[in-house]
Amino acid sequence: MKALKIGVCGVGNVGGAVIENLTSSPQIVESNGGVKIEITQVGARKGKSAVPFDLDVTTNLLEVAQNPNIDVLVELIGGCDLAKDLIEESIKNGKNIVTANKALISTHGDELFDLAKKNGVQIGFEASVAGGTPVIKALREGLVANKVKWFAGILNGTTNYILSKMTDENSSFEDALKQAQELGLAEADPTMDVDGTDAAQKASILSALAFNTPFDFKSVAYGGIESVTPDDILYADQLGYSIKHIAYGSIEGEEVNVSAYPTFVSKDQLLSQVGQQMNALEIFCEDIGSTVYYGPGAGPKPTASAVIADLVDISNGGWPVLEDDIKKNTLCKEGKKTFSRYFKLDVKNEAGAIAKVSSLFAHENISIEALVQKESKQNSDIPSVPVVIISGPISDTNAFQMSGNLDSMEEITNSVKQFRIHNAL
Amino acid sequence: MKALKIGVCGVGNVGGAVIENLTSSPQIVESNGGVKIEITQVGARKGKSAVPFDLDVTTNLLEVAQNPNIDVLVELIGGCDLAKDLIEESIKNGKNIVTANKALISTHGDELFDLAKKNGVQIGFEASVAGGTPVIKALREGLVANKVKWFAGILNGTTNYILSKMTDENSSFEDALKQAQELGLAEADPTMDVDGTDAAQKASILSALAFNTPFDFKSVAYGGIESVTPDDILYADQLGYSIKHIAYGSIEGEEVNVSAYPTFVSKDQLLSQVGQQMNALEIFCEDIGSTVYYGPGAGPKPTASAVIADLVDISNGGWPVLEDDIKKNTLCKEGKKTFSRYFKLDVKNEAGAIAKVSSLFAHENISIEALVQKESKQNSDIPSVPVVIISGPISDTNAFQMSGNLDSMEEITNSVKQFRIHNAL
Repeated sequence: MKALKIGVCGVGNVGGAVIENLTSSPQIVESNGGVKIEITQVGARKGKSAVPFDLDVTTNLLEVAQNPNIDVLVELIGGCDLAKDLIEESIKNGKNIVTANKALISTHGDELFDLAKKNGVQIGFEASVAGGTPVIKALREGLVANKVKWFAGILNGTTNYILSKMTDENSSFEDALKQAQELGLAEADPTMDVDGTDAAQKASILSALAFNTPFDFKSVAYGGIESVTPDDILYADQLGYSIKHIAYGSIEGEEVNVSAYPTFVSKDQLLSQVGQQMNALEIFCEDIGSTVYYGPGAGPKPTASAVIADLVDISNGGWPVLEDDIKKNTLCKEGKKTFSRYFKLDVKNEAGAIAKVSSLFAHENISIEALVQKESKQNSDIPSVPVVIISGPISDTNAFQMSGNLDSMEEITNSVKQFRIHNAL
Repeated sequence: MKALKIGVCGVGNVGGAVIENLTSSPQIVESNGGVKIEITQVGARKGKSAVPFDLDVTTNLLEVAQNPNIDVLVELIGGCDLAKDLIEESIKNGKNIVTANKALISTHGDELFDLAKKNGVQIGFEASVAGGTPVIKALREGLVANKVKWFAGILNGTTNYILSKMTDENSSFEDALKQAQELGLAEADPTMDVDGTDAAQKASILSALAFNTPFDFKSVAYGGIESVTPDDILYADQLGYSIKHIAYGSIEGEEVNVSAYPTFVSKDQLLSQVGQQMNALEIFCEDIGSTVYYGPGAGPKPTASAVIADLVDISNGGWPVLEDDIKKNTLCKEGKKTFSRYFKLDVKNEAGAIAKVSSLFAHENISIEALVQKESKQNSDIPSVPVVIISGPISDTNAFQMSGNLDSMEEITNSVKQFRIHNAL
C-alpha cells in the first residue's frame, strides 16, 4: 500500500480531530483511499502536554517544516503570520501542504501557489471553505469542463444558525447569537462571523477557482447580519423569501464581482431551505446549469474530513497545475451586477409622504415591483408607518445611493434598510 | 502543458457533446485542468457521416482499442456486449477507460476493475451516476475519511420529472409520461426508467463505493412508479410528504441493503424539494452527518461534463487503487432495514370493516401511527371508502406480507398499495 508521512502543526480542535481520525480508525482511509497515512511529527507550541497521543511532539514548528522524513505539512494553527512562515519553509523543503487556513489563502494564496509551483509541490485547501462539504473539489475537479457563470453560497454556519433561529423561533438577533455561543457555534468574539468577514474570505477563494481571479480578499464587498431584525424576517416570509447571508460571485466578460451580504432568497430555491448551522453552495455553469452542494461547514470532524481527503488526493497525484501564461480575470469591488432590492422605511404618517417616496424612486429611474404598507389601518396618531418596497434590479452603488437619498428625506423618520434579493436566473 | 490522447467510441448525443466541448472550447479544460486533450480517433459504427467533426473516424471500434497512440478509451456506446469487449481489449492494450455505462459497471464492474488493476490502468465512471453532478467523486474522494452509514438518492430524472409534474399540476401518470417523452426526457420505450431498473443500477454502483460491496445490480431490490396515482400524491401532501423515487442503501454490521422504490419524503428534507428532472443524493456519514449533492442527472452536456472531468483526473494521476485483501461487505436483497409505511386500502363501507383492518395490524404487531378516512361523511350507498394507514417501521418482507394479508381480506375491495416513508435519522 502507498504510504504518506505527515507533520501536523496545530493541535486545537481540528488538529485533534485529524490525529484522532488517523490514529483511531486508520483502516477507513486505508480501505477507502488505498494509503497508509503516518503522523511522523506533531508541532504544538504548548508541547507534549497538549497532545494526548503517543507521537513525536516538538514545540518548534519550523522543525516540522524542515523534517526530511515528512512528505506533507498539515497547517492548522491559523492566522497569517507564523502559518505563512511555516508553509513557506515547508514548501522550500519540498513538502506538500494541506491547510484549513482561509484567512491565509484568501490573502496570500497567489504568492504561496507560485512558490509551490516553483518547488514542484502542491497545496490542498478543501478545509478552508464549507468544511466537510467538498466544494473546492467540485469546482477544481468535478466541474473542470465548464465555464462557471455565478455562484451563491451560505458559507458561514454561525450566521446561518442565527438567521434560522430568528426565522423559526422569532428570536431577536441578540438572543440567537447568545444561543449560538452557548452551543459552541459562535466564538466569544463573534465579529468575524457576524460581520461577514469569514464568508467574504471564503468567497474570494471560490472566486479564484470559479473565475480564475487572484486570491484577493480585499476586493470582496461584504456586510454582516447585525441589521437584520425579526420584522425583516416577517416581511420576507410574507413576500415568499427567507433571509440568508449569501456570498455571491459572477463574471461578465473579464470582470468578476464577488460580495457577501444578507440576502432575500425565494422559498422555491434550495438555498432558502438550508437551516441550522449548515452550509450550501450553488454553482451555475453555462452548459449544465446549477449544481448544489450542502453539508456541515465547520466543526472539528467535518474540517478533519476535508484535511484527510486532501492528504489522500496528494497520495494520488494531487490536482491540476495551471500554466503561468493564463491571463487572470479581474476582481472588482464596485459591482456592476444588479439585484432586485428590499427597502424598509419608516415613513411619516401624513398625507402625501408615500407619494413623495415613490416619486424619488421614479426620479432615480428605479422601478417599484411591490409596496407593502401593512399598518396604515391603525389610528392616525402614530407618528410613522413602516413601508416595504421591492425594487427592480439595481447595482450596489445605486442601492447605497438610493438608501442615502431616502435617509435624507424629511418624510423618512428612521435609518433606511436595504437588502439584496437573489434571483437564480 | 500535459497532453492526453483519447479515442471516443460512440457518437450519439453524449459522444457528440464530448467531442463538441473538447473541439470547440478546448481552452476551458486547458485553463481549468491544465491539460490538452486530443481526440486521436473516433469509433463510430455508422462511419464518418455520423461524425460532424474533422477527425480520424473508424467503423471498427476494436481498432480504437488497439491504437497505440491512445492513452484513454472513452466508451459511450452503452449496453453490455460490444462495450465490454471493447473495454477489455483497451485495458489489455494498456489504456485507461472512461465510461458512462451504468448497465455495464453495475453488472461487470468487479471483473473490469480487476482486469484494470492487473494492467495498471484506471476506470473513470463519474458519468454513470447523476450525470453532471459529481457524486462518484464525492464518495470516492471527498468523503474518503468517513464511514458512510446510508445514502438516499433521486437518481432517475425521468421518474422525478413525472412525479414532480403529477405533484405540481395534478397530472395523471400517463399524461406526465407523455409530456416527458415530448420534451425528450423519456425514451419512446420508458420501461428501464419507469420500472426502477435505471435507478437500481446506479444505486448498486454507489453501494460499491459507499459500502465496499461487489458491483452487483442483481442484489438490489426495486420497484417502479407506475402504481403512483394523483390520489397518493394528494394524501402524501396532506400528511406532509412528497412522493419521490428514492434509491436507498444502508449498512448494518457487514450486511448492506440497497433498494429503489417510490417513497414518501418529509417536506422538511432537501430531497423532497428536488423538482423537475433533477437528481440529488444525500450521503450520511458517521462523524459528519449528511452532505447533499444536487444537479442535472442526465442529458448530453451534463454527461459530457462528467466524462471530461474523469479525463482530467486521469491526467493528474487518477484515483485510489485499493488493496486486494480488503474484505468486501455483502449486498443482500432481502432487506432487514425497516421503514414506516403508507398503506392505501379501499375498505367496504360497512360497520366493523375498519376495526377488522386495525385488528390485523395489531395481530401482526405493526403499529398504526395515523389513519385517514376522508370520505366517510359521504352517503352510505357507496360500496367502499379509501383508507390511508401510516404504519410504524417494518421491513420490506413484512410490508409485502402485510399487503398480501390485507389483499386477502374480504373487507378490502381493491388491490392494496404500500410505499416506504424515508425518515432521515
